[in-house]
Amino acid sequence: MSLICRHIEQLSGYTPGEQPRFEGMVKLNTNENPYPPSPKVQEALAAFDWQKLRLYPDPNCSRLRTLIAELNHCRPEQVFVGNGSDEILALFTRAFVEVGGTVGYFEPTYSLYSVLTAIRDAKVKPLALRSDFTTPMPEADYSDVFIWTNPNAPTSLMADPEQLKAFAAAFKGVLLIDEAYADFAAANCMPLAVSPGNTNTLVMRTLSKSYSLAGIRFGYCVGPQPLIEALYKIKDSYNMDALAQVVGLAALSDQAHMRTNAEKIIATRTSLSETLRQRGWEVLQSETNFLFAKPPVEAAALFAALREEHIFVRYFPGEKTGAYLRITVGTPAEVERLLTVLACYKA
Amino acid sequence: MSLICRHIEQLSGYTPGEQPRFEGMVKLNTNENPYPPSPKVQEALAAFDWQKLRLYPDPNCSRLRTLIAELNHCRPEQVFVGNGSDEILALFTRAFVEVGGTVGYFEPTYSLYSVLTAIRDAKVKPLALRSDFTTPMPEADYSDVFIWTNPNAPTSLMADPEQLKAFAAAFKGVLLIDEAYADFAAANCMPLAVSPGNTNTLVMRTLSKSYSLAGIRFGYCVGPQPLIEALYKIKDSYNMDALAQVVGLAALSDQAHMRTNAEKIIATRTSLSETLRQRGWEVLQSETNFLFAKPPVEAAALFAALREEHIFVRYFPGEKTGAYLRITVGTPAEVERLLTVLACYKA
Repeated sequence: MSLICRHIEQLSGYTPGEQPRFEGMVKLNTNENPYPPSPKVQEALAAFDWQKLRLYPDPNCSRLRTLIAELNHCRPEQVFVGNGSDEILALFTRAFVEVGGTVGYFEPTYSLYSVLTAIRDAKVKPLALRSDFTTPMPEADYSDVFIWTNPNAPTSLMADPEQLKAFAAAFKGVLLIDEAYADFAAANCMPLAVSPGNTNTLVMRTLSKSYSLAGIRFGYCVGPQPLIEALYKIKDSYNMDALAQVVGLAALSDQAHMRTNAEKIIATRTSLSETLRQRGWEVLQSETNFLFAKPPVEAAALFAALREEHIFVRYFPGEKTGAYLRITVGTPAEVERLLTVLACYKA
Repeated sequence: MSLICRHIEQLSGYTPGEQPRFEGMVKLNTNENPYPPSPKVQEALAAFDWQKLRLYPDPNCSRLRTLIAELNHCRPEQVFVGNGSDEILALFTRAFVEVGGTVGYFEPTYSLYSVLTAIRDAKVKPLALRSDFTTPMPEADYSDVFIWTNPNAPTSLMADPEQLKAFAAAFKGVLLIDEAYADFAAANCMPLAVSPGNTNTLVMRTLSKSYSLAGIRFGYCVGPQPLIEALYKIKDSYNMDALAQVVGLAALSDQAHMRTNAEKIIATRTSLSETLRQRGWEVLQSETNFLFAKPPVEAAALFAALREEHIFVRYFPGEKTGAYLRITVGTPAEVERLLTVLACYKA
């Protein structure tokens, strides 16, 4: 008999986007922010007394929860801080869906959801996006829980918050709205998460994208206190290390820096989208820090050709996504280099 | 119907030891190291380019696994690095015991094990230590998995590695040997973990105690490659942040610093044990960085009295442990302060 649980043995794990390290490469494959985090992060690290690392960190991230509550107009008891959104997603599948239960999400979306569902030994119930990648309305009893990525990855499109509000009101289970890219979007669902009548909806954010902090692991979610308490019950005792807490606090304290970077990225996104369209690409209306775009040549071949030039973008094979590339919006210089190389591959 | 899983709703979470913050307090309650981490940690943090925090960390901790493998004479594929031992314990319960299965451990031990078992919706199967807190031999089919803390907390005693070797050979399930305190002990089970014939035993270490790094979350375990691979399948994609990786690498690279601190703590442990025994305490033979000791007065009252003086130790109520205090071995100055205050409470 195997020593490993049946459903774990059968499972193939999640494969993160590759992390190549080449001098001078253009890395547009994992939606990292091309700009550094706030200088307040540098100050906080420099001021941190390294000798205090001998002590356990605050297990409850009290100062962080207070700050996040202020930023989002709710109480600290409505805030959960996790070791990356990944930890929150994993806890979500363990707190709100039973073994054998169903996890709903749109398809295509972030591929981690199906892996986490398999780890939980629950059942995936993907709902196909329409052929133009817009979102249909799931039934009120579609699944035990639903993860709605908005704006969505890899499509870059945003569903109208009114649609999510209507779904949340009807849905029988717990809804997690993954807003990893919300700071690059024109609207978001945080008002829904903090509204007094909300009993079943969590809105999740990350510091990996807009705050330029993929290197620390920092996500948070906001919602009804009973759901937040359930997550706290099952998290690892000290899930956030002392340095991540200090860095996260510094970054969240500097909203202006984050907004400035986000606006720069949005401007580059607009110009890159326009140029690609002029060159015959079909570019979806991005509300994120990346484009999902269909080149006028074969996407897989173009992906491989860009790799040869040390330009890394993301390619998702498959019927629905195989004609597209996902391109992180980099600096103007990175985008220029991309466009120069792409000029050799016109239809 | 509740939105929260039945077994989570019923559960009361783990309560970490309190983290009081008083100027001039003597904090001997959570087995932290009284000495700072290696100066190489300071150097590594100072040399770290904070701007690189915008990039994702290495999801597989490659450099760390190579170093840990060298230190323990095994291959990197036999090493798992986790966000604290806590994460490894949680993953262990998810990878190797099915829902409804049994988790064995000795009683009393680290109280997190029963909480993790409840989170997994598995069944606890505690095996009572003998009345002198030594370890009986569990049956070969005692439980689906077994967590053996050696040296044990809160008792401070070490079981002979030969006993664990014999149990590992007989046991039908996966054995996790939690060696959080091994660097303060005369022997350990790492040779068993890396022995070629081992198929079912993992040995786990932490940087929280001997390396003075409770503030970052860093644990690792070593064992058979198939078991390590199962843990990698179900971990969060980027479980170790970039700073924890840099700090951990620096600390593990300075074995001399860790050994020097451990020897200082062992020397203080010896002198504190002797003094307490002279004062009528019953002190168990510690192989850890703390003492488990029975005062000649009521333990609960003494615990409360010490608190009043801002001296924090740990007290575990209950039939087996209620006559004892768990006292972390601090600096000589902290121990002197403790002994001075204790002098007022002689039998």
